[in-house]
Amino acid sequence: MGANPAMRRAWLAHNTGHALETAADTRFAPEETRGNIENLVGATQVPLGIGGPIRVKGEHADGLFYVPFATTEGTLVTTYQYGMRAITEAGGATTHVLGDALDITPCFVADSTAHALEVVRWLDEHLPELQDRVAESTRHGRLLEVRAHVLGRRVFARMVFATGDAMGMNMVNLAADRVCRDVTDATACDRYYLRCNYSSDKKPAAINLFRTYGKEVAVEVTLPAGVVEQHLGLTTADLLDFVAAGRLGTMQAGALGANAHFANGLAAIYIACGQDVAQIVNASIGFIDFEAVGDGDLYVAARLPNLVVATVGGGTQLPTQRECLALLGCDGDGTARKFAEIVAATVVGGELAICAALANGRFIEAHRQTRVAAARRGARPVGAA
Amino acid sequence: MGANPAMRRAWLAHNTGHALETAADTRFAPEETRGNIENLVGATQVPLGIGGPIRVKGEHADGLFYVPFATTEGTLVTTYQYGMRAITEAGGATTHVLGDALDITPCFVADSTAHALEVVRWLDEHLPELQDRVAESTRHGRLLEVRAHVLGRRVFARMVFATGDAMGMNMVNLAADRVCRDVTDATACDRYYLRCNYSSDKKPAAINLFRTYGKEVAVEVTLPAGVVEQHLGLTTADLLDFVAAGRLGTMQAGALGANAHFANGLAAIYIACGQDVAQIVNASIGFIDFEAVGDGDLYVAARLPNLVVATVGGGTQLPTQRECLALLGCDGDGTARKFAEIVAATVVGGELAICAALANGRFIEAHRQTRVAAARRGARPVGAA
Amino acid sequence: MGANPAMRRAWLAHNTGHALETAADTRFAPEETRGNIENLVGATQVPLGIGGPIRVKGEHADGLFYVPFATTEGTLVTTYQYGMRAITEAGGATTHVLGDALDITPCFVADSTAHALEVVRWLDEHLPELQDRVAESTRHGRLLEVRAHVLGRRVFARMVFATGDAMGMNMVNLAADRVCRDVTDATACDRYYLRCNYSSDKKPAAINLFRTYGKEVAVEVTLPAGVVEQHLGLTTADLLDFVAAGRLGTMQAGALGANAHFANGLAAIYIACGQDVAQIVNASIGFIDFEAVGDGDLYVAARLPNLVVATVGGGTQLPTQRECLALLGCDGDGTARKFAEIVAATVVGGELAICAALANGRFIEAHRQTRVAAARRGARPVGAA
Amino acid sequence: MGANPAMRRAWLAHNTGHALETAADTRFAPEETRGNIENLVGATQVPLGIGGPIRVKGEHADGLFYVPFATTEGTLVTTYQYGMRAITEAGGATTHVLGDALDITPCFVADSTAHALEVVRWLDEHLPELQDRVAESTRHGRLLEVRAHVLGRRVFARMVFATGDAMGMNMVNLAADRVCRDVTDATACDRYYLRCNYSSDKKPAAINLFRTYGKEVAVEVTLPAGVVEQHLGLTTADLLDFVAAGRLGTMQAGALGANAHFANGLAAIYIACGQDVAQIVNASIGFIDFEAVGDGDLYVAARLPNLVVATVGGGTQLPTQRECLALLGCDGDGTARKFAEIVAATVVGGELAICAALANGRFIEAHRQTRVAAARRGARPVGAA
Repeated sequence: MGANPAMRRAWLAHNTGHALETAADTRFAPEETRGNIENLVGATQVPLGIGGPIRVKGEHADGLFYVPFATTEGTLVTTYQYGMRAITEAGGATTHVLGDALDITPCFVADSTAHALEVVRWLDEHLPELQDRVAESTRHGRLLEVRAHVLGRRVFARMVFATGDAMGMNMVNLAADRVCRDVTDATACDRYYLRCNYSSDKKPAAINLFRTYGKEVAVEVTLPAGVVEQHLGLTTADLLDFVAAGRLGTMQAGALGANAHFANGLAAIYIACGQDVAQIVNASIGFIDFEAVGDGDLYVAARLPNLVVATVGGGTQLPTQRECLALLGCDGDGTARKFAEIVAATVVGGELAICAALANGRFIEAHRQTRVAAARRGARPVGAA
Repeated sequence: MGANPAMRRAWLAHNTGHALETAADTRFAPEETRGNIENLVGATQVPLGIGGPIRVKGEHADGLFYVPFATTEGTLVTTYQYGMRAITEAGGATTHVLGDALDITPCFVADSTAHALEVVRWLDEHLPELQDRVAESTRHGRLLEVRAHVLGRRVFARMVFATGDAMGMNMVNLAADRVCRDVTDATACDRYYLRCNYSSDKKPAAINLFRTYGKEVAVEVTLPAGVVEQHLGLTTADLLDFVAAGRLGTMQAGALGANAHFANGLAAIYIACGQDVAQIVNASIGFIDFEAVGDGDLYVAARLPNLVVATVGGGTQLPTQRECLALLGCDGDGTARKFAEIVAATVVGGELAICAALANGRFIEAHRQTRVAAARRGARPVGAA
Repeated sequence: MGANPAMRRAWLAHNTGHALETAADTRFAPEETRGNIENLVGATQVPLGIGGPIRVKGEHADGLFYVPFATTEGTLVTTYQYGMRAITEAGGATTHVLGDALDITPCFVADSTAHALEVVRWLDEHLPELQDRVAESTRHGRLLEVRAHVLGRRVFARMVFATGDAMGMNMVNLAADRVCRDVTDATACDRYYLRCNYSSDKKPAAINLFRTYGKEVAVEVTLPAGVVEQHLGLTTADLLDFVAAGRLGTMQAGALGANAHFANGLAAIYIACGQDVAQIVNASIGFIDFEAVGDGDLYVAARLPNLVVATVGGGTQLPTQRECLALLGCDGDGTARKFAEIVAATVVGGELAICAALANGRFIEAHRQTRVAAARRGARPVGAA
Repeated sequence: MGANPAMRRAWLAHNTGHALETAADTRFAPEETRGNIENLVGATQVPLGIGGPIRVKGEHADGLFYVPFATTEGTLVTTYQYGMRAITEAGGATTHVLGDALDITPCFVADSTAHALEVVRWLDEHLPELQDRVAESTRHGRLLEVRAHVLGRRVFARMVFATGDAMGMNMVNLAADRVCRDVTDATACDRYYLRCNYSSDKKPAAINLFRTYGKEVAVEVTLPAGVVEQHLGLTTADLLDFVAAGRLGTMQAGALGANAHFANGLAAIYIACGQDVAQIVNASIGFIDFEAVGDGDLYVAARLPNLVVATVGGGTQLPTQRECLALLGCDGDGTARKFAEIVAATVVGGELAICAALANGRFIEAHRQTRVAAARRGARPVGAA
């Protein structure tokens, strides 16, 4: 296809009859995309709404935040908004970054299990050199550890990196590749593959339950009985009755993690803030738990072990995306963990709201209203065929 | 917050100092969002690139297609493009829609297992009435079956619907709720929850391996040895050596499904085409398999059991999204299965390309070039901290 | 090796210096093994203890039962005994057989997806003939349904059988093989494999969450507060506090099913009663749930979807095994479901006891005493190195 | 029940009419059971057969071994025998013990996430003291590491032990309990539960893919084309065609691990050798992989990460069990790893045989013959209802 977006569109119009005129009116000059995409023709415009404010009392995020959601799904922003406000009314959510790492697992192909075990041993014994090697190729990334195991004559070497504020995939790819060359040279290994699915980036896998991938964040909030009733519209006991059913649903379905819809909030925030959207597959694997405490209060705790986020690099540099990060005060160096804490607290808000709505019947009421509202405008609402 | 996007932005600017000026310049009038979002302030602009053409020889899609990808991740479009062209050169991918359904699993809370079993029995015996009830609330949706089981005094009743061209979530919610009221009335059930996580919408769960959720699509293509070598840059044997390593990675990681990066292409197409993006969590659970056949040819087969897509309703009606569906000839009634086949064939293209790139070293080469290109423009590339 | 057990032992003694004299004194004549084993040299003697009585109020089992456990693990019988008595004191456990089936999944290798879909269609259209074919080869087994799906050019055809009182594996193998020949003849399919791991017999797999394999049994019992305190040694609230921790442990570990130690009781009863012991891998995948009801009472519910058991055929005909089945009144025709209900109720007893013991500290006390008792006898206790 | 086996049987006969006369004739005096069981009434007699010899060339096992199988399932010994001989003919299987550990995960209940994180920190900082504490209670066990994480206010502290030749469960329970008391004292933690399902002993869970539990063993063998053909009755290519189908079956079923029937061999050897049989649930989670190498040779590699075995303590001290361990030269100190290697090599033999039998049709032939043999003796064969 042609050499610039306009030429590509002309070419497409010629070949397909579609000129993509609306998309053509991008809010960024093609040169601003800086490696974000190829074969650029314009921009997809995704409706952007704001939810909140949510109060976060974290290690890195501290304050009231208005959170941007880019979505085409009606009721999503409202749902999150309900829960975010309940959290704010309860005094805010406490957050902790429990871990911060990104791993990649090259596969070395040796001659035999014995040879493969030699490679493992070599890796165990040469970590400092490999760390130095990594330091040559990146200023911000660091190799933290290498955990290798064998299956037959293959070595699966999980290399764990710290990546700072960047998501880090590119950095990790380049640094690991450099390390791999040293390994094959030193161990007479025939060949290696830089990735072999084991780290399961963008794939739902059990490994996501057992290691930090991106930021691992804990969220905790206790909602007084009055807040539960006023802002969620039911008692703690009624909420927990739903939670019991939902938990059995989760377990019988064989889910990885346990939550109601982490993915909804993550998708909307990831699009708004220029994150790598496919990583919601991993990021949505996490746990939330509810307990009654005191006299009808609600204790909520969550752990999101796979929150891959960035505040520099990739899509974060694009105009609307940067704006949204700035809205959260997360547009500069040293803000990735802050961003992770805000995101994690927000998705907990979304859980509170959806569980309450499913427990008290507002869920179906909201869907019914969406339908009516859309019908009034002469339009078909979400999915209402 | 205020009553229209401009007021909301003014209010945000007042409260946070951020005016979201770039996002403000949406490509749609607020009234066009028709129930797609609440608290609208503007639009997120996601770079849109075009890949292809890919030849699809399906039951519903037949022809050459240029596929839109909205992404901020460099190399994504190029990667898919490689694989799509290899498929086209091989004569195209055959596709079949194997299933088409959306389910929802209400949970009924009975008094005891015996009572719960009565509810199950009632459901088994009254399917025709329940189907009629559903027919009252929707023209396009149909209740296909109800499969209920008990755990203690709770009934988990999976209701399976056909939804036509709409994604159908709203329709399914409303129709199932209506059915549930009949059930509780008839069976003296105390209460029900419309959803209980069992159907695992937007959640990665084992259930996704065992039922159709959305469209279930099969893709098949045989690439002649020459096409493999010329377009993927390696021999079939070399590709399969990587595939063997990748498969062991997949299995040892405890993945649901087996693929390298279905999620990448799905995320980009879902954003471009106004799909419910959070559903890539389910949709990315699927299988791809490679075999050597004949004299160095490559047989590729995939099954995507959870491809939740729509060509009407929801985000599909928005301007740029509609344009992208139109580009694929999927903007009218009766096009959802066609769209599903194009999407499935395209992600198979992405698999071919990434596996080849990881096998022949082009993967790291591409990442290295992205970095260089970005550096030339004085910008940090994807993840390169 | 030699032609009879004595000759084999002589031969072994000659080759290895071990005469297996204790094992030689079997409680059965070699000819009694009737196809149970090859290369017979004698018998392993597993200590047999009795637990109970447990009151079961089931569809098929109704009464008080003394349950045989063959085990070498100290505290196992005592633990189950505690829980069984608590159930009996609470008036007994209600049980239901929810399902009864055994499946096998042959894999047909076709030429293409299109051909594979023809095979699926043929299977859908010829169920009655296939059922007749099965009826020719077995009096007790019946083919209930065939659910086939494709992946590439392969058809995975799950054939579901009713097997009566026999476990049914052999019957299912023979009947399915006969069916497969008809299928390949009729559909010009190149070849088939009778089994391909999909049915996951003796393998822990997610499929076990979604279909009946063997008997599917529900168990339900409400323990009054007084019984909980007197027989389990704690309050319902204290038990539930442990259960909350245990449930989080289960979910974070990525378990299939949710229970504490179904496998212990199953292994011991399966050995005692001549069951196929390797099937505890499947059978132990099941769910148990606890709730507080009324004023401190404890509601317990379980579902065991994969309880593969038999009361005829296989090991059930051996002397000590038959005796144990007879003790339960399960040694004749029509007793397999009764047996399944007793087993399921018993493992629920074991759950109650272990959870209580872990919650109130008796667990470690029991292990400490086992150690002391063993030490007094000058022996090393279980695992106390 | 009564005070000794005879009295218990009399009591049972009185209450149930069953005297358990055959079981009464145990091959061990009650006092020999030394804490292996409670409420002893006698012994279950399980047919014992011998398979092999299998040649093992391991780190710990080196030689030809005759392996004892206690089973009631016809064809099991023969099947293993085929594979074991093929391995022996190929020169033997190479084995490595990759890991050796047993873990237990107490759950500490703190006041808040912040408090829970203090507990984690305390654990991180006091490993040496905790190791000393463990050393006080056991001579053979050692605390290797503690890996703790939080979910809400709960700490899940995985404590990893070395257990020597004992299986170690009792030792680990007692040592961990001692450690837990120190932790709660030092950290003002309200309470703890010694176990919370996280370590998943006897439960099929994803965690079993990611840590050593018991012995972790690698097995590797290359079978020359001639051995494959003569001893397995097919070509390597034909075997691999089945393996491809079986692998797709495994993955589509959502299996943990990838093997055909590890559980069969494990159950039979565990019973014969006095192991804790319920642990086959974990132990059967492992991987086997096959590749064509050279000119039609077959490369086979396996990894069994969860092989919990013991050669001292528990059931290993009982007469027939001890005899079987002695047959393998595994009845003394320092033999647990040797035993693990023999077991692992043997189950690989079982895989070769079953895959070959399913691929070449012998599988169904064997089942047909079993049936005929049983019928000749006027008996019902395994499962043939």
